[in-house]
Amino acid sequence: MKTIWTCVAAGLAAAALGACSTNTLQVADVGSFHVGGRAVTLSGLPQKELTFTPGAPPLKVDPNGDFEVESLYARYTLLANPKAKVPMLLWHGGGLSGVTFETKPDGAPGWENYFLHAGWSVYVSDAVERGRASWARYPEIFTSEPFFRPKKEGWELFRIGDTGSYATDPSQRKAFPGTQFPIAAFDQFAKQAIPRWATNDAATQAAYDAYVQKVCPCVIVVHSQGGNFAFNSALKYPDKVKALVAVETSGSPNPDTVDYARIKGVPMLWVWGDNIDKFPFWGRITAQQEKFRANLVKAGGIGDEIVLPQVGIHGNTHMMMMDRNSDQIAALIDQWLARQGLKR
Amino acid sequence: MKTIWTCVAAGLAAAALGACSTNTLQVADVGSFHVGGRAVTLSGLPQKELTFTPGAPPLKVDPNGDFEVESLYARYTLLANPKAKVPMLLWHGGGLSGVTFETKPDGAPGWENYFLHAGWSVYVSDAVERGRASWARYPEIFTSEPFFRPKKEGWELFRIGDTGSYATDPSQRKAFPGTQFPIAAFDQFAKQAIPRWATNDAATQAAYDAYVQKVCPCVIVVHSQGGNFAFNSALKYPDKVKALVAVETSGSPNPDTVDYARIKGVPMLWVWGDNIDKFPFWGRITAQQEKFRANLVKAGGIGDEIVLPQVGIHGNTHMMMMDRNSDQIAALIDQWLARQGLKR
Repeated sequence: MKTIWTCVAAGLAAAALGACSTNTLQVADVGSFHVGGRAVTLSGLPQKELTFTPGAPPLKVDPNGDFEVESLYARYTLLANPKAKVPMLLWHGGGLSGVTFETKPDGAPGWENYFLHAGWSVYVSDAVERGRASWARYPEIFTSEPFFRPKKEGWELFRIGDTGSYATDPSQRKAFPGTQFPIAAFDQFAKQAIPRWATNDAATQAAYDAYVQKVCPCVIVVHSQGGNFAFNSALKYPDKVKALVAVETSGSPNPDTVDYARIKGVPMLWVWGDNIDKFPFWGRITAQQEKFRANLVKAGGIGDEIVLPQVGIHGNTHMMMMDRNSDQIAALIDQWLARQGLKR
Repeated sequence: MKTIWTCVAAGLAAAALGACSTNTLQVADVGSFHVGGRAVTLSGLPQKELTFTPGAPPLKVDPNGDFEVESLYARYTLLANPKAKVPMLLWHGGGLSGVTFETKPDGAPGWENYFLHAGWSVYVSDAVERGRASWARYPEIFTSEPFFRPKKEGWELFRIGDTGSYATDPSQRKAFPGTQFPIAAFDQFAKQAIPRWATNDAATQAAYDAYVQKVCPCVIVVHSQGGNFAFNSALKYPDKVKALVAVETSGSPNPDTVDYARIKGVPMLWVWGDNIDKFPFWGRITAQQEKFRANLVKAGGIGDEIVLPQVGIHGNTHMMMMDRNSDQIAALIDQWLARQGLKR
């Protein structure tokens, strides 16, 4: 079906031509850019001695000088004949990068692939401090030190298994029965982890805002920690954000004080996985997000939600874009976006 | 010309069909993966207090646990109908990531774009410690501290201007007359800088070796610091590396002790920019690389070189893939690869 659709979209008699083979994408352009950020100058720091090669004499390195910091990196794949009216921006969550949405840790196609084949031009970004966006000296530029997510935290916080179910030995880890996460690929997933800071929110928001100004109108599909940034960008540029899909978003501006009138024209959809009731932490998050959603609806906006187990889809984790049934969830998002009039 | 070529390659009557518009790429697949690396466990480190939000009470964070570290990240764009017999791997240099080869800092298409349109499936990687490959705690895992490249070093070391020609104020910077670097985009280029370590060479080599084993046969186009890793991988897997293009490579295994018989079947091409004679540092590098090249030829291998000013192409910097005439240089590389029998 996908084959036929892609080729018909491209205006070709698919069967008759070798060119339009299974799943071929007609790509107008690929590329990337850094956006946002600022120039800083460091001075007065002492020279350091660094040993470049074990055994070799140390070399003096001067850490002072001019730097560019706090920009955001985005990579785009633009379709020649998109079915969507605007591009899709995929925003990752905490301790991760845009890789979240690329090929899944088990090697199967991820959401970037799904949405490209569904006719969306797709942008995948790395926020300030992550991945190709790079990071800056601390405490001179970033004001605190970073932290690193241990596997145990990923396994339990992302609801692959219950609190205490992680073990160093993969064979001893106890996932929730029926989990959709491909647990044999969990250590592969752990390779995607990126150190994070707790004190860069203002810089990250500024870079996301610059990003939205540069490439939107668009839709934003945002995960976890990214939620707060996406809601804030939508509040600043409601005309630029044509829809916002909040995938287990973990925060937002204060739901009691948001100016919902500004964003009631931005349709929003929240998507939640399974086993949330087993974690008080997730209960607090969903309660806060639910308040935001309800207030948006009360103000006349579109604030829909899909709680997967309530529609018969069970076993999904916080990393649902890597779960075995990730295509099924992407299809629900794609259909919802189509209902908002965003596809041709 | 590119339009017609792309469409003819796809087996289409280009002019008659809307699908095959200017520069449309027929893409079979896009995706990414992490490869290589190892599991480590940290224990006995004290808990840290981190302040996540300014003014909020600090939270205790436990830095101990299991981590995956020292893998390499690669992103691929595979053509439906490649003109090349094997894919091309683009390996970046020091203090940078794979972004080196993507869209140029001035917004024009980079070498990734060029080679895709020339019929190569292309892989772009981030080595250990850089970009989406991520980095690990030091000194517990990485054994030293990182260093950050100031703009002055980029400007002068990469031969955009002479020693002492950098200034904080862009209008005061003195580039070499006729430089091909788009100097108005120099600060944008500086956003691509990624902190680097001096002590991760063994881990980086191991990840590159795993990468070559995973995706090759291939050709490798390698820049600057990446050279040493590529030469070593070719020595380990000479049957996997069908050609190696050394773009201002800055190091190699000891040219006096290399087993050239192992790699005499791997055609190699060195490419050098302009103004090298103005820097003793670059003179030492080219002398060492020239010794490697001459010894390879003496052993019966193919060791070609293009010194751009010697063929009438002037003003190129160390970052020639970002220079204004980057397409011209890519074309020379593409033609050389074709002469090695690597295109259909």
